[in-house]
Amino acid sequence: MSRSVILLSGGMDSATVLSIAQDAGEECYALSFAYGQKHDAELDAARSIAAQMGTHEHRVISIDLGQLGGSALTDASIEVPEAGGEGIPTTYVPARNTVFLSLGLAWAEVLEADAIYAGVNAIDYSGYPDCRPEYIAAFQSMTNLATKRTSEGKTLDIRTPLINLSKSEIVQLGASLGVDFSLTVSCYSADTTGAACGECDACKLRSDGFAKAGIADPTRYQEKA
Amino acid sequence: MSRSVILLSGGMDSATVLSIAQDAGEECYALSFAYGQKHDAELDAARSIAAQMGTHEHRVISIDLGQLGGSALTDASIEVPEAGGEGIPTTYVPARNTVFLSLGLAWAEVLEADAIYAGVNAIDYSGYPDCRPEYIAAFQSMTNLATKRTSEGKTLDIRTPLINLSKSEIVQLGASLGVDFSLTVSCYSADTTGAACGECDACKLRSDGFAKAGIADPTRYQEKA
Repeated sequence: MSRSVILLSGGMDSATVLSIAQDAGEECYALSFAYGQKHDAELDAARSIAAQMGTHEHRVISIDLGQLGGSALTDASIEVPEAGGEGIPTTYVPARNTVFLSLGLAWAEVLEADAIYAGVNAIDYSGYPDCRPEYIAAFQSMTNLATKRTSEGKTLDIRTPLINLSKSEIVQLGASLGVDFSLTVSCYSADTTGAACGECDACKLRSDGFAKAGIADPTRYQEKA
Repeated sequence: MSRSVILLSGGMDSATVLSIAQDAGEECYALSFAYGQKHDAELDAARSIAAQMGTHEHRVISIDLGQLGGSALTDASIEVPEAGGEGIPTTYVPARNTVFLSLGLAWAEVLEADAIYAGVNAIDYSGYPDCRPEYIAAFQSMTNLATKRTSEGKTLDIRTPLINLSKSEIVQLGASLGVDFSLTVSCYSADTTGAACGECDACKLRSDGFAKAGIADPTRYQEKA
């Protein structure tokens, strides 16, 4: 049985990726990050998903990206924008995927895992540079030179099975694998219970995904005043 | 004036790199990591160096690599070996340079810095895969695709000015730039005051470097029983 590290954010994409890895017979080690997100709902969701889906182990690493600032997701002085702006939005967290994949690499080496799975998606995303296939390919090339494991001729694959799927295709795939999307939190401004704002980029992408997939949206939304 | 992030470990190499960046007229932002090292002497050294050399700012990010285990430098159950073993030693910290450079990348983006300086060295090192020039080149290629900054056509250089220098050349260069090596700690088993064991790989490389450079070794060694 081969081992894999799964980057698990608590959102629907990484939950789907976890179900893909488990369906492929991998022994799954889920890894989440307390990186200075404005709320804990995302991490609570990751814990629920890891427990419900029966991962072999789930670790949460603390790393204070908020100390570095620069993102609406980690810096209280920057407001989360509504959906539909131009360019790379302020919700971009500088080098986030690089930092998370690097930590996945560290754990994968210790575990002697063959692969790291990440829910990176290049279609229905927010224009983040570190979600593109060419970025993932470059991270793989770097990985091949970075570690004791790869320098000894073993493989360590960066797997992003959702990279070319639309949000509705992800919904369909996850549903077919039995993912309980009601446990997942995508919203950039979720409240402490995980209820979604319905107005940010992540909420729009998610609700459009369910609508196009023809699957009922189990998302809990915040009650408006 | 261009800005740079300097990865500052508290050792002699990164102190020399900081002096190179300052000599080049860079506005220097030093970055250190509390990553679960067995002792704090290294971080204390980094703080002294940053203060004495007048960096613009110095930040210490906490990140618990010890939680992932796998290295004699972070795992209390693995002993630091004496110098001279075969292969990649147990002092290798899985994916450490990748994790540190990634966090440097995050801060560099926020600061709009042009470069990250790291004291990586491929000559007198311990055989770590993430100290080789081809690894650094691959990290640069990945960087070029990873960030908002680079995707907007600006540069973010990974600079490793020591990569092809021997330890004695580093000693000579640092001395010529006025580095106070007595502040630096290289030892893998330094005591709480920063005094060195004199027996690990890092101690041997360091003392050989001073000897070959013909410069008096200012290192404080632990008193033997």
